[in-house]
Amino acid sequence: MKALLLVAHGSRRKQSNEEVVILAEKLKSQCSAQYTIIHAAFLELSAPLIPDGIKLCVDDGATSIIVLPYFLNSGRHVIEDIPNIINETRALYPDIEINVAPHIGASPLIMDLLIASANTTVTNMA
Amino acid sequence: MKALLLVAHGSRRKQSNEEVVILAEKLKSQCSAQYTIIHAAFLELSAPLIPDGIKLCVDDGATSIIVLPYFLNSGRHVIEDIPNIINETRALYPDIEINVAPHIGASPLIMDLLIASANTTVTNMA
Repeated sequence: MKALLLVAHGSRRKQSNEEVVILAEKLKSQCSAQYTIIHAAFLELSAPLIPDGIKLCVDDGATSIIVLPYFLNSGRHVIEDIPNIINETRALYPDIEINVAPHIGASPLIMDLLIASANTTVTNMA
Repeated sequence: MKALLLVAHGSRRKQSNEEVVILAEKLKSQCSAQYTIIHAAFLELSAPLIPDGIKLCVDDGATSIIVLPYFLNSGRHVIEDIPNIINETRALYPDIEINVAPHIGASPLIMDLLIASANTTVTNMA
């Protein structure tokens, strides 16, 4: 069973973290054919942290897990922190394939998103 | 003349800030019909800061400016800091229309972006 773990930075502001959980819920409704299991996790400041998010996927029966970093820039968190945590966590589950997807800011679709967002205001102003 | 100001948080990591500048350059090549002027600016930690970014647009001849927050979550920066800075800056340019677009995390396209990014790994793994 394939699992998707959406990983955000985590915020002191509860509502920001809830937005990520809601996003994971929406993904669940749109990707159920591809990912049987979907959870959200956080690098810091909010539960579940990444190792606990991996455990949630494993407990649900995941045999392979895609970790998707919900980050815009290729900063230290994306380049070092998340891969390091995943490497450590991977050692706990030798039978489970855990891969890290590119952070979402690396997607070629980001340009369409920017243009659409900019145009949203233009429409609102009309 | 319409201007688009892409506003990111700003990082201590130079490469992260350069990514935002490169993104603004790409936007320039794709949106020149809609926005004659495009600049990047940062909330903190990197130049140009938002008021300086607005000034760059004005100096280039902008008569209306869309500020596009390159942020995923509706945290304090999106809800308070950017609108406050824009309100203060707006007072300096009474003849120029300055509007703030929704932060890009609010876009309905974010779901497509997440799915595409998750699938990128799946493709890489094949």
